[in-house]
Amino acid sequence: MTTFSTRLTRALNIRYPIVSAPMAFAGGGALAAAVTRAGGLGLIGGGYGDPAWIEDQFDAAGDQHVGVGFITWSLRKSPSLLSDALKHRPAAVMLSFGDPRPFVDDIRGAGTVMICQCQNMEHVQDAVDVGAEVVVAQGAEAGGHGALRGTLSFVPEVADFLAQHSSGTLLLAAGGIADGRGLAAALVLGADGVLVGTRLWASKEALVKEPHHNSILESNGDGTLRTRVADIARQIPWPRGFTARIRRNAFTDRWHGREDELEANVAIEGPRYRQAFAQGDPDNTAVWFGEAAGLIHAIEPATVIVERMVTQAAFHLTRRGGATLS
Amino acid sequence: MTTFSTRLTRALNIRYPIVSAPMAFAGGGALAAAVTRAGGLGLIGGGYGDPAWIEDQFDAAGDQHVGVGFITWSLRKSPSLLSDALKHRPAAVMLSFGDPRPFVDDIRGAGTVMICQCQNMEHVQDAVDVGAEVVVAQGAEAGGHGALRGTLSFVPEVADFLAQHSSGTLLLAAGGIADGRGLAAALVLGADGVLVGTRLWASKEALVKEPHHNSILESNGDGTLRTRVADIARQIPWPRGFTARIRRNAFTDRWHGREDELEANVAIEGPRYRQAFAQGDPDNTAVWFGEAAGLIHAIEPATVIVERMVTQAAFHLTRRGGATLS
Repeated sequence: MTTFSTRLTRALNIRYPIVSAPMAFAGGGALAAAVTRAGGLGLIGGGYGDPAWIEDQFDAAGDQHVGVGFITWSLRKSPSLLSDALKHRPAAVMLSFGDPRPFVDDIRGAGTVMICQCQNMEHVQDAVDVGAEVVVAQGAEAGGHGALRGTLSFVPEVADFLAQHSSGTLLLAAGGIADGRGLAAALVLGADGVLVGTRLWASKEALVKEPHHNSILESNGDGTLRTRVADIARQIPWPRGFTARIRRNAFTDRWHGREDELEANVAIEGPRYRQAFAQGDPDNTAVWFGEAAGLIHAIEPATVIVERMVTQAAFHLTRRGGATLS
Repeated sequence: MTTFSTRLTRALNIRYPIVSAPMAFAGGGALAAAVTRAGGLGLIGGGYGDPAWIEDQFDAAGDQHVGVGFITWSLRKSPSLLSDALKHRPAAVMLSFGDPRPFVDDIRGAGTVMICQCQNMEHVQDAVDVGAEVVVAQGAEAGGHGALRGTLSFVPEVADFLAQHSSGTLLLAAGGIADGRGLAAALVLGADGVLVGTRLWASKEALVKEPHHNSILESNGDGTLRTRVADIARQIPWPRGFTARIRRNAFTDRWHGREDELEANVAIEGPRYRQAFAQGDPDNTAVWFGEAAGLIHAIEPATVIVERMVTQAAFHLTRRGGATLS
């Protein structure tokens, strides 16, 4: 077993600096538990807030110490989800996409680690202002919702900001990180660990239908785009500024660039989208993965994925990226 | 003087794995020569092909061994630019944005290193097919023209492709790399070196007006966007699929999202844009830098920039990104 410790592993008392992204629908208790068991920290995806589903996922996680993540603007509509989740004494609560302020007191009161995911420097300032223990710098490569900054330049900029304004705050890099090279890169860029979505979406434990899993194996990293069409079809009122990275397929070919028309036809297209999603149709609904698709060639158990990331990262760091230095 | 060698430095017989991006207008002979003198490889920006300007820049480079880069689709309109440039026995010729095929024989015939810059996996396949010695994987974070892939996931995907299909081909990472952390990250991601644009745009030697230089010092990494408005205003017919990352300013606030209207008003707006550019107006014309702006806090000599990148990269690689491994 590899030893791989950073400020993050020491602060959270975990073995590896790898946190699973709390992916709505896909990131259930089994995946979160598997990541924690493998030595990282697993987060259940609180998503749009189905209380029974979230309870089921905490049950599925069993005795593994996992956390939970929420879509902040959505949580605001049903804040009891947070108090319910805190009863499980989660290892951490992650807030993404919206103002964290309304939830800070409850999280702090429960003595839980607060993780704030950020898509630009303004978000980072907010996260520091509310005293987040962990900040996630999420780049546009990420699957699912996000914004526009690229991971490679965003992470060191956030690292510099934290070093200057809040040096005890820990930093996770997210967006496009799917193997040990990404983990190693994140660390040399100044992060203390990584948040992994797409690579764990492509795990045995993720709640993803087989045709969607097959879809990522067929895609390279060019095969995704950022778009609003999934949210329009689902009638989920995401705030402007956030888009979702999903696979390019018949659904996006049909509607991306024709958002107004989709909106006008949502009475028909909405149910069609949801039915296709429920059936695991890979063509007529959104398939939720990011640019890291080009680095993924098998659906594997989360523990294999985590263990390999760590081993590869150690290898690449030890050989100093292949450079001969003196 | 730090020793920092990779496959790239050994193949090109340079000291450091740093190549300057051949930035149109900004990347003249003085900058290229300074980068070569500092131990990297400097490339003159052939831009849209003003033969007298290119001659002047080779003169300005003096006896330093520099290369030159061209915008491929534009070079096609005046191929004599290439034969003229080859008379200077450049250290390398870089082709970006378009089909390299028409120029391969001339470059090969001159015994010059061919660098092909790529924005997606299809471009990489093309570059391998024509036998490029060096492939650049350029991410969307880059200033100026580019496309949509993020550097952090694109680079390892290209590295894997080359390892499988053309293992002798060298790989440079580009887009968002402005300091030693970016260089270190590029190497652990599988690159043999980096192509640096924005950070060298912000150098003393770059042909950039002072108010534009001041503009990058005031901006963080959130302050740019990818857009077509500069090319519409300049009436430069860039192929669809490529956009330019420039600073958000009054010009982009006014026109981004109103491209058709700008096109309709180009008889007035075109000259206005060009005059503002010539005057160094930072508000009413495009200011050409990328997301790495958030990592840049001073306009410095290129040699200071190159030397510091190498020293910092060596530091971060040697300390293994702060991880404790065993």
